[in-house]
Amino acid sequence: MNRNVQVLLASRPEGWVTESNFNIVETDVPQARPGEVLVRNHWLSLDPYMRGRMSSAKSYAASVEIGSVMVGGTVGEIVDSKHPRLKTGQFVVGSLGWQLYATSTGEGLNVVDPKAVPLQAYVGVVGMPGVTAWTGVHEILLPKAGETVLVSAASGAVGGVVGQLAKMQGCRVVGIAGGPVKCEYTVKELGFDACVDYKAGKLLDDLRAACPEGVDCYFENVGGVVMDTVLRVLNPFSRVALCGLISDYNTTEPYGITNIRSILVNRVKVQGFIVSDRMDMFQRALPKLARLVATGKIKYRETVAEGLHAAPKAFIGMLKGENLGKQLVKLI
Amino acid sequence: MNRNVQVLLASRPEGWVTESNFNIVETDVPQARPGEVLVRNHWLSLDPYMRGRMSSAKSYAASVEIGSVMVGGTVGEIVDSKHPRLKTGQFVVGSLGWQLYATSTGEGLNVVDPKAVPLQAYVGVVGMPGVTAWTGVHEILLPKAGETVLVSAASGAVGGVVGQLAKMQGCRVVGIAGGPVKCEYTVKELGFDACVDYKAGKLLDDLRAACPEGVDCYFENVGGVVMDTVLRVLNPFSRVALCGLISDYNTTEPYGITNIRSILVNRVKVQGFIVSDRMDMFQRALPKLARLVATGKIKYRETVAEGLHAAPKAFIGMLKGENLGKQLVKLI
Repeated sequence: MNRNVQVLLASRPEGWVTESNFNIVETDVPQARPGEVLVRNHWLSLDPYMRGRMSSAKSYAASVEIGSVMVGGTVGEIVDSKHPRLKTGQFVVGSLGWQLYATSTGEGLNVVDPKAVPLQAYVGVVGMPGVTAWTGVHEILLPKAGETVLVSAASGAVGGVVGQLAKMQGCRVVGIAGGPVKCEYTVKELGFDACVDYKAGKLLDDLRAACPEGVDCYFENVGGVVMDTVLRVLNPFSRVALCGLISDYNTTEPYGITNIRSILVNRVKVQGFIVSDRMDMFQRALPKLARLVATGKIKYRETVAEGLHAAPKAFIGMLKGENLGKQLVKLI
Repeated sequence: MNRNVQVLLASRPEGWVTESNFNIVETDVPQARPGEVLVRNHWLSLDPYMRGRMSSAKSYAASVEIGSVMVGGTVGEIVDSKHPRLKTGQFVVGSLGWQLYATSTGEGLNVVDPKAVPLQAYVGVVGMPGVTAWTGVHEILLPKAGETVLVSAASGAVGGVVGQLAKMQGCRVVGIAGGPVKCEYTVKELGFDACVDYKAGKLLDDLRAACPEGVDCYFENVGGVVMDTVLRVLNPFSRVALCGLISDYNTTEPYGITNIRSILVNRVKVQGFIVSDRMDMFQRALPKLARLVATGKIKYRETVAEGLHAAPKAFIGMLKGENLGKQLVKLI
């Protein structure tokens, strides 16, 4: 008989996450009660926001309690249903956490079609990361044709979509990524006009060369010295969509941003945003993203860890930038 | 016969401005040519933005050239006119610089009524600083009744108006100022609900006490450690109007802001702005500000330096926060 496997938060990290912050346990597969479904998760999504949920620091969402299942986006199949609407055999995307099986009242679950796009895309480019990119581009940055759009973590699940959406607006699209492999991927495969390797040690010069007319829109996933340097190449009336600050998530002393004056002098708008505030965007963006993926107009790559036991290591690797594209865990 | 006196930029400051950065010269009073007026300035306004114009660093407006008259807002009387529309005896506000007399084609000059409000108010609360406050409050912060509005440099020419305008919106208004005299002035005279003395050495605790429900709107004139601390008390979906960063203007190494994460977590909008981008606001705000001043609904104070020779010292004093309210130079 099948058993459930769960990854629990064992302790809160100080600085870098370690595998000892997680506890992997085996339990009975739960039973669907009346009104519930039982879901067998096929894919778990690993995303930078999870680092925030491991901390007790005040954030926009509650921390994961010590001893609780780690939060995470999942897509899987309904294997038992006592729910009036959801049926056994349907595939559902939701946030069922780092575990093989979960019961649900159906709240927050959405039925998806595994024939339209690959199942795992529903936790990636046709899911939360894709909608995050869409919201940043079409609700905050609003790039105009001919403008230069810069995106950090450009080869990541969000950044890759940002660049491709901006390209569709007729913009010059420049990425920032770590290392030549990621940079080459964004240019050759995703169609970016240029990509700057922040690890090459001359970020400011390289940004100036890649953005000869300055930067009009910046989609920020990284923060720290990358953000501080980008502030120096922003144009008057530019916009910054502040989506993530992954470089600070594992530091105990965050980097001090010295070029705030650029925000004043260039009359910049900086907007912090979190896609879960904008559930309306899922309705609007997902069908469009699905079509763009199905027709090959949005490309993406995945880094896949095999099995739930591999999730902690893969998560730490993602925080260190070891993945290319969307970091997934294959559960079946 | 009258002579003109001018304050020229003698050298660019490194760090703090010194009096040796200025050169005071006496010249002939210029003659109005056909199409021009000759203006005898009565008041010169001293404002923090002038520090930026003394530097060669790229900014939103051109630097003052070495040997040129310092830029500055002025109000004065037309003493000769060869202009088709402007008449001798009219009072005009404009930006004629640190000098007693200037000729002008009339571009950028606006005729004002010295009986409606005191003449010098046209370079203060019924002028650029007042419109700056109006724009920040009514175009960027958009405070709602019951929200908490925080303003730094609260006793200054801009900050004092910000607080009073926000109070009219039904907000809790809290200031940040340096020292008990300025704090008492904002509360007792300007009607702020509270004011925090940043020099008291416990800014975070004092902000938390003064803003028990957090901060929804922040009007920033100061930057540096003040801004970094305020970021820690911002509420979700708060707005920051970034108007000035006076604490950085005289440093060679700007302060590093460590709490950028609050902008993300709280989905903050930070908007840099400069009132000269919004000339439309002058048309809209000035009549309203004049009425509010004339009816005593907006109060203000002035610190007056006597004579143009006193301008450099007064300017340096203002950068150090030695003035209370609007810093003026009386020229006549």
